[in-house]
Amino acid sequence: MTPHLFVLFGATGDLAAKKLFPALYRSFGDASGVRVLGVGRSDWDDAKIQDEAAGALVESGIEESDARAWADKTLTYARVEAYDELGPVFDRADEIEASGETEGNRAYYLALPPSTFPGTITALGDHEADNDRAPNEDGHQEGGWTRLVIEKPFGSDLESARELNAVVHEHFREKQVYRIDHFLGKETVQNLLVFRFANAMFESLWSRSHVEAVEIVVAETNDAEGRAGYFDGVGTMRDMIQNHLTQLFALTAMEPPARLDADGIRREKTKVLTSTRAASPEHAVYGQYGAGEGKEAYAEHEGVDADSKTETFAAVQLHVDNWRWQGVPFTLRTGKRLKERLTEIIVTFRRPPVSLFNSAKDGCEPSPNVLRIRLQPDEGFRLSFDVKAPGSGFSTSTQHFDFDYADAFGDPPDAYETLLRDVASGDTTLFVHAEEAEQAWRIYEPLLNADMTPEAYATGTWGPQEAERLGFTLDPATPYSDC
Amino acid sequence: MTPHLFVLFGATGDLAAKKLFPALYRSFGDASGVRVLGVGRSDWDDAKIQDEAAGALVESGIEESDARAWADKTLTYARVEAYDELGPVFDRADEIEASGETEGNRAYYLALPPSTFPGTITALGDHEADNDRAPNEDGHQEGGWTRLVIEKPFGSDLESARELNAVVHEHFREKQVYRIDHFLGKETVQNLLVFRFANAMFESLWSRSHVEAVEIVVAETNDAEGRAGYFDGVGTMRDMIQNHLTQLFALTAMEPPARLDADGIRREKTKVLTSTRAASPEHAVYGQYGAGEGKEAYAEHEGVDADSKTETFAAVQLHVDNWRWQGVPFTLRTGKRLKERLTEIIVTFRRPPVSLFNSAKDGCEPSPNVLRIRLQPDEGFRLSFDVKAPGSGFSTSTQHFDFDYADAFGDPPDAYETLLRDVASGDTTLFVHAEEAEQAWRIYEPLLNADMTPEAYATGTWGPQEAERLGFTLDPATPYSDC
Repeated sequence: MTPHLFVLFGATGDLAAKKLFPALYRSFGDASGVRVLGVGRSDWDDAKIQDEAAGALVESGIEESDARAWADKTLTYARVEAYDELGPVFDRADEIEASGETEGNRAYYLALPPSTFPGTITALGDHEADNDRAPNEDGHQEGGWTRLVIEKPFGSDLESARELNAVVHEHFREKQVYRIDHFLGKETVQNLLVFRFANAMFESLWSRSHVEAVEIVVAETNDAEGRAGYFDGVGTMRDMIQNHLTQLFALTAMEPPARLDADGIRREKTKVLTSTRAASPEHAVYGQYGAGEGKEAYAEHEGVDADSKTETFAAVQLHVDNWRWQGVPFTLRTGKRLKERLTEIIVTFRRPPVSLFNSAKDGCEPSPNVLRIRLQPDEGFRLSFDVKAPGSGFSTSTQHFDFDYADAFGDPPDAYETLLRDVASGDTTLFVHAEEAEQAWRIYEPLLNADMTPEAYATGTWGPQEAERLGFTLDPATPYSDC
Repeated sequence: MTPHLFVLFGATGDLAAKKLFPALYRSFGDASGVRVLGVGRSDWDDAKIQDEAAGALVESGIEESDARAWADKTLTYARVEAYDELGPVFDRADEIEASGETEGNRAYYLALPPSTFPGTITALGDHEADNDRAPNEDGHQEGGWTRLVIEKPFGSDLESARELNAVVHEHFREKQVYRIDHFLGKETVQNLLVFRFANAMFESLWSRSHVEAVEIVVAETNDAEGRAGYFDGVGTMRDMIQNHLTQLFALTAMEPPARLDADGIRREKTKVLTSTRAASPEHAVYGQYGAGEGKEAYAEHEGVDADSKTETFAAVQLHVDNWRWQGVPFTLRTGKRLKERLTEIIVTFRRPPVSLFNSAKDGCEPSPNVLRIRLQPDEGFRLSFDVKAPGSGFSTSTQHFDFDYADAFGDPPDAYETLLRDVASGDTTLFVHAEEAEQAWRIYEPLLNADMTPEAYATGTWGPQEAERLGFTLDPATPYSDC
């Protein structure tokens, strides 16, 4: 693994404890030459961050002695007063680099509130310039590389995303920038590309000629309680759909890339997003969870106005105006406090043009073939197809081909583990490109500008019934209306 | 179940004991009005056939008391001197019918040596005519129906099949005739039609645009010992390929029928056989098993000449000259004393037009998708596809979707059970039409007329290595050459 100094802004936060420390340990635990400098405004010191990180590692299932040894060996801390006054960070970093262990390579990881992004990025950029660390035209950097990793959210609408990109590009080359969407780190999401482009039989079917509809469902059972302060006024559209679901959509709908590298893939994702018609409020439904299962409604959470119009559920139908997908609806939906935790991409193929069979249930058409690409709770595929039901005649019965990723390969690595390795090895394939982020915002501008009123839905349901007017059934187990 | 008298010619033979008595019991055991009249040249009587049948049923796993009760209630016997002197049969049949129980319906089932077919059919036809039982133009028969069931082989080449059809049609209408190919009674074979025409996704791929090659493999572990008297001079081409494998081929390659009935399906099977180019000796390889696994060679069997050229293995490549299949090789192969017992239709799809991935094995192309339709030893489907192998980058790993018929539905009924029910209910869908039988012989005429010399292969292998020049690997587990 490439030696480097991993400078973690927001080291005292939740994401660091829950995801980043464990991912750092799992990615680089055995590697020499990887050091971590935590940055925060809390009054921590090296001993404190080592304790906290070791505790977090133990929480995530790592042996205490291993956790302790790694934390003590790897972690240091720099306290700042504000995220645009980074003197203490650079001093500490220089000190660590003096050993030569990290070979002058630095990854700056911004797990910070988005309001601080411009100031921090500017401060980092100025420091790079002052120290002649800016890469030349070819991207080559003397004395070690610098990479900038930016956590979500990347802007809150098209304009703010453009402004943020402008700040970033004033100080860094796009090749140095790693915008995180942790969905891209999941094995099954990457597998989407392999599944599509390594299997001629599926890619041959992957178009308007054979596909009736595509649904992308991210159903959560958790809620906004405890993070309502952040969530209220942001809502599901910005928090989930513009990034995670739109990434799944882009990977599902994109054309085959010329090459399977960062440029090739990001070019095709950007292209299919560019071909996607701006969403229309008539083809979108927002929801907000009410009480249920002994829990209070969203509007009753602390920090939420009783008349809050923040959506905790959103469904939107997208249309791609290109040769491959014209006329095929892509429906994205996600919500909190739904019935089950589940992430699936559901591809419903067209039915046979004529029905030669009697289905086993009287008067039923044969079911369409449905391919489910499951990301949560377990990763895998399910392909439904009809076979002959036993007995005389030709009645059909719907059966399934199943593939479970963990059965074949064991548990997949955590998304952050994959992403941190890619930052270290300089592979931007699984990160979001500047233009891609802007295109993803463009699609949803009409909804962000509209006065959308969320429909109420009870906790523990699949969301507001009104969403079915977009042409799907709310329960993802039955994407097409059965008879 | 329709009441009828089932007249079983060859009631003292192997097929009756192993297959027909158990199938009769399982199909009609509970039905009233079904009686069986066994016919043979052996000196049996009612008590003897009842004992023999009850014993055969017990062998096949039926409770002794049930077997006994059914045999005593159902079975009678008529002895004949020759199979064209059927006076005793008709006398006995009239006697049984006098009760009215069987409502005048008769199924004549010819499980006889093929040399007797013309005489028996003529005798049966004459009797029908003499008793005014011939059906009118619409196929309607006064006083009960007559159906003629003919076991394989149906002729031994095109000319003899034509002659036999002429005899049949002199006395019976085609709608009365049920030419048996017991492969058609298997659930998975019927399932081929459902799988193809109820699943738009598979049927969309079912053509030269997406399919690279199709293999039909019937591997047997048994041999010709004990039946060499019948088998020698007949050989695998006539015994297996012209009928069973050609039926599988026709169902795999045929166009969708206008309707899923006997006429519709038999019309399409005949059509695709008509489009099939006559086989050429250059695209066929014969084999004969040698010794191995402690067993003697074919040429050492009793009743076989030491220089016998009878083939116990045959592989032949067929080409279908139509819009759907031009250029796609269909390779049929079958043999005795092979490594494993296995019947599969292997559809290898085309590889992706470009290879974007590194396979996990260095320098390998991604594997093609392969669909295996398995008929033996267990019925089911296996579809192979590539997924992402765990870890960084995009290496692929070939995995499988599996579907096992017995897991979903329990053990399928025996083929003969299905076929006997269909005879009783008058459904000719799963039987071979006159024209179809002739077309199947036509395809292989050049091989039957050629002086084919079988290649030696050792018992327990997959057949003679020379067969691989037809463009497949002998081991059906690896239909395409892997790297």
